[in-house]
Amino acid sequence: MPRFAFTVEFDGRPFMGWQRQAHGPSVQQTIEDAIAAVTGETTVIHAAGRTDAGVHGLAMRAHADIGKDITPFRLMEAINARMRPAPVAILACETVADDWHARFSCVGRSYVYRIANRRAPLTVDAGLVWRVIQPLDADAMHAAAQHLVGSHDFTTFRSAHCQAHSPVKTLDRLDVERLGDRIAIHAAARSFLHHQVRSMVGCLAMVGMGRWTANDLRDALEAKDRAALGLNAPPDGLYFVSATYP
Amino acid sequence: MPRFAFTVEFDGRPFMGWQRQAHGPSVQQTIEDAIAAVTGETTVIHAAGRTDAGVHGLAMRAHADIGKDITPFRLMEAINARMRPAPVAILACETVADDWHARFSCVGRSYVYRIANRRAPLTVDAGLVWRVIQPLDADAMHAAAQHLVGSHDFTTFRSAHCQAHSPVKTLDRLDVERLGDRIAIHAAARSFLHHQVRSMVGCLAMVGMGRWTANDLRDALEAKDRAALGLNAPPDGLYFVSATYP
Repeated sequence: MPRFAFTVEFDGRPFMGWQRQAHGPSVQQTIEDAIAAVTGETTVIHAAGRTDAGVHGLAMRAHADIGKDITPFRLMEAINARMRPAPVAILACETVADDWHARFSCVGRSYVYRIANRRAPLTVDAGLVWRVIQPLDADAMHAAAQHLVGSHDFTTFRSAHCQAHSPVKTLDRLDVERLGDRIAIHAAARSFLHHQVRSMVGCLAMVGMGRWTANDLRDALEAKDRAALGLNAPPDGLYFVSATYP
Repeated sequence: MPRFAFTVEFDGRPFMGWQRQAHGPSVQQTIEDAIAAVTGETTVIHAAGRTDAGVHGLAMRAHADIGKDITPFRLMEAINARMRPAPVAILACETVADDWHARFSCVGRSYVYRIANRRAPLTVDAGLVWRVIQPLDADAMHAAAQHLVGSHDFTTFRSAHCQAHSPVKTLDRLDVERLGDRIAIHAAARSFLHHQVRSMVGCLAMVGMGRWTANDLRDALEAKDRAALGLNAPPDGLYFVSATYP
């Protein structure tokens, strides 16, 4: 059965997250239901990452095995038509080798976390950024973030629900940039623990507010204890940006 | 009575437009109701521009006369609290001279129009950009746009409901920029006719699609006839960006 790879964009606001849930809408179910409507087949899609409720995707990668004789372009168009008006879109679709797996073949994942550093309530981008009222020192955040880059035991930055075998991950990039009242935090690694990006961003915000020093952040990392976490940032500002394959 | 000037950001999606309407919610009413709740006074706010239904504001300027003894900062905070959860926010507030008028003192207005030039349906920014499926040549659009810059009779680009005394306006800037699959069109003038920006953008899109040449655009302008209009762009992508005062 041909394997189709998808590049998926979605607005996380109305969803319980990527993964299918019994108690509410998910991105996975939205796509699987559309595929079923198009092909008459029940399929399971596998994604590079399983984002939480409220987290967005700019170019999530996923795959599904589909028996129907259809071109990738027509499949993409038909799925997009069936998903309307849910805020999920297939941006690209192609056939891949049978052993290509969106999750297990993936060797790199990147996220961006967006902050609006302002006092006024959000309007146009409510639910799409984290509003932080206290002035943030982005340079201090960037400098402190470099303590987290590299291979570490990230237990402090790991959700109690994390299913990873090991808390050791290698963070390739954690860059903080300011443009006007917007701050973007770019994170890249082969893989992340559950809540790792949001936990790192929350602690960087503590640094940006001046409530933590860079050394406090390093101490929190070295504590290897979830109780040492400063703050977990909300899902609103988090976007899955890209997945890399060999 | 002290006059307060406001800088206002709003998401146009849920509103009938800026101006108070009997048949639906407006930005004006949202702010006036909040002011009434805060001050106990019935006030009328005046804005630099009256945006249409679905058009957004990044920094609309407005003013109101308010008798209550309150600082601009506390007034802003109280109005923002009262407007929640409507997507309208006062970004700044200050007192101004009695003869300062948000509309009549304004000597420059600027807009940006945002296009997503892509095939896939919109997700995160549905209602916030105009999706154009046909590939657009932004360089051709920019070159053609220069025919509209300067003083002209813009009758072709004017809504039948326009209340301006004269169809002659001086367009100071009409620049088209592409970044990836996004196109931004920047327009600036002392003032605009009703639907002028959307009408100009619609015709520039005709040029970008290759359905019109730059000469066709110039001919449409010289026709001084609404029937010569190629296309009126939807409100989704239009943002009031700034108002200038002496």
